[in-house]
Amino acid sequence: MTTTDIHKVIVYMDNAAATRPDPRVVEAMTPYIGALYANPSGLHGPGQRVKEAVEEARARVADLIGAAPEEIIFTASGSEANNLAVKGLSAAKAKNGRHIVVSAIEHFSVLQAAKRLADDGWEVTYVPVDENGLVDPGAVEAALREETVLVSVMHANGEVGTIEPIPAISKIVRERGIVLHTDAIATAGTIPVSVDELGVDALSLSANQFHGPAGAGALYVRKRTRLRPLIDGGIQEGGRRAGTENVAAIVGLGKAAELAKEEMVERAATTAELRDRLISGLTGIIDRSTRNGHPTHRLPGNVHIRIEFIEGESMLIMLDIAGISAASGSACTSRALKASHVLAAMGVPQEKIHGSLLFSLTHENTEAEVDYVIETLPPIVERLRAMSPLAHDAEAQGA
Amino acid sequence: MTTTDIHKVIVYMDNAAATRPDPRVVEAMTPYIGALYANPSGLHGPGQRVKEAVEEARARVADLIGAAPEEIIFTASGSEANNLAVKGLSAAKAKNGRHIVVSAIEHFSVLQAAKRLADDGWEVTYVPVDENGLVDPGAVEAALREETVLVSVMHANGEVGTIEPIPAISKIVRERGIVLHTDAIATAGTIPVSVDELGVDALSLSANQFHGPAGAGALYVRKRTRLRPLIDGGIQEGGRRAGTENVAAIVGLGKAAELAKEEMVERAATTAELRDRLISGLTGIIDRSTRNGHPTHRLPGNVHIRIEFIEGESMLIMLDIAGISAASGSACTSRALKASHVLAAMGVPQEKIHGSLLFSLTHENTEAEVDYVIETLPPIVERLRAMSPLAHDAEAQGA
Repeated sequence: MTTTDIHKVIVYMDNAAATRPDPRVVEAMTPYIGALYANPSGLHGPGQRVKEAVEEARARVADLIGAAPEEIIFTASGSEANNLAVKGLSAAKAKNGRHIVVSAIEHFSVLQAAKRLADDGWEVTYVPVDENGLVDPGAVEAALREETVLVSVMHANGEVGTIEPIPAISKIVRERGIVLHTDAIATAGTIPVSVDELGVDALSLSANQFHGPAGAGALYVRKRTRLRPLIDGGIQEGGRRAGTENVAAIVGLGKAAELAKEEMVERAATTAELRDRLISGLTGIIDRSTRNGHPTHRLPGNVHIRIEFIEGESMLIMLDIAGISAASGSACTSRALKASHVLAAMGVPQEKIHGSLLFSLTHENTEAEVDYVIETLPPIVERLRAMSPLAHDAEAQGA
Repeated sequence: MTTTDIHKVIVYMDNAAATRPDPRVVEAMTPYIGALYANPSGLHGPGQRVKEAVEEARARVADLIGAAPEEIIFTASGSEANNLAVKGLSAAKAKNGRHIVVSAIEHFSVLQAAKRLADDGWEVTYVPVDENGLVDPGAVEAALREETVLVSVMHANGEVGTIEPIPAISKIVRERGIVLHTDAIATAGTIPVSVDELGVDALSLSANQFHGPAGAGALYVRKRTRLRPLIDGGIQEGGRRAGTENVAAIVGLGKAAELAKEEMVERAATTAELRDRLISGLTGIIDRSTRNGHPTHRLPGNVHIRIEFIEGESMLIMLDIAGISAASGSACTSRALKASHVLAAMGVPQEKIHGSLLFSLTHENTEAEVDYVIETLPPIVERLRAMSPLAHDAEAQGA
């Protein structure tokens, strides 16, 4: 264990990995963990009652993104939703062709699903991004072929915070009758997301990104869009995802969606203020530090800072000791300590990738917490640089 | 809604669909729904703490079935575990051949996964069962081919209660180097299950079958057995199942496994007594009623009764009005009101299949509840038969 155990207060800024379930979400879930445990497929009163709770949650999730309830498929995670989209939408269209297009900065659950298709003989085109992490709709257009059946470009990148031009991409993709999926895990529940305004056929979201529980994701699939299930079996989710429903998690997702819709504008404004304060505070004080990602097309809670000559992991450990929970990149790969494929795609040189830190904020963070980080990180950087051979080399070269 | 809402007490006998989470399980889970929400992949104190809880749960699940912790892959349901087994074990061996063998009475999550393989050009052999629902190991042997890569036979059938001779099947299958999977969803946590005594390479289980939460299943995969993931992406579960862990559900599964191991003998004895009392009570009073499934190789909580000349659904509705929650077959297909493929495979004529009722008990049921069912069902049967054209026809024919 780390010494954070002895800290009374933890400054939690790893919301891209998981947000704190809102107490109102926990309250809504609680009966379904205990007393209301029946299987929603049960043909009896207790089963009927929980079935109604599942359908109410479905309506709330649909409402959050401007969809119809029957277009929502509950999953156990955003990764499952992304796998279901990439594999399931492709497989359903395989007769039309076996080529898909994804951006180079997609989440691993999209990239690895695409790789799985490639293993099975599909062709995959990876669309590059610019130095801010933006996908160029023209590049998507250039990647399309006669046999392309699916394009998947994320709504926003949770690591560097860049929001992608999905409506512009939609125009190009959908006028050719190609299915468009967007991974909106970083945006749904955080900024306005409308499946019609985005112009997408499928969209992934995850409750733990907007103060809902873990274990609850969803895939929106537009009416009349064919999908091959990932989990076959019973008739749950209209036959598109078998398995007894995790009612508590689904109810939590529904409640989180309801709260997010009501409070989104205020939450995002609060969060963006904290974000800007933290970015300017850190980059203003720390020499040779830069914000990663787009300056304006940016998630309200994303603070991704590149700090030269030191390792992100060392900074994380020292921040943890100071009671600050942050990250270096995607939680799904952090323990592998891999270099970020997102920064690499943005053209950041390999030796600079490792010095990146991700502080992901929500409206639950405070100015005092932000100021504590601004106060705590610069001396850590100074100390680490004093020990770093990279920093010494750079100094010697007059860098 | 049904009128059960106005009942003060519900006699819950649909435990094959979902069991009540033990209050000690709920207590163990509660912190992980609220305060301990961090992502276990987080490289910080809070992440580390929940990571430890996940690993503790893994050890407990492994202990329940005599496995090593690293052989346990957490899933979100038993259906997901079965899909991962059937599709993932087959795909990993596809170079050796594209033929699998399953029993005809497998759960839909196995049968539909097999059907998916068949859609992709695989060959699937369905091994028949006898009138008691027993798989003959000789029939499995006869089904094996040079190109067989997987055999999947369930440990017990949750609908009719029959326990299958897995060790005998194992001898035949594994001596040929073919991978053996068993769906132990109806048995793990209820009767002793040891992966070595059964002699299996893979085994599915589900927490909601033994007083754990919904949303928590697991697939055991023996060391050095290759598996292709169903959900690709991050490095969770050793790269075999991507997606942020549902820590609360996993902790609940771990606690349920611990309790099941400690209390199994006593629980099973209590349950079997209730089962036998209910079977003999009902079949003793109700004319032309029979127990389905094996007389002795039987799950301790399974009471599956065939009642001639009436519809199971009508009985379910009237039982529900009387405050009794039961089922007609598998929860995963109940709302589809399909005829049971299990009874059909056992040779029950189509017109008799629809009159079956499943009361699934656990140690939480009581003698008083059993007696209430014995008192309540016969008059319901009498009333329905009085209205049934089938019963009148039978009477007219002197049946």
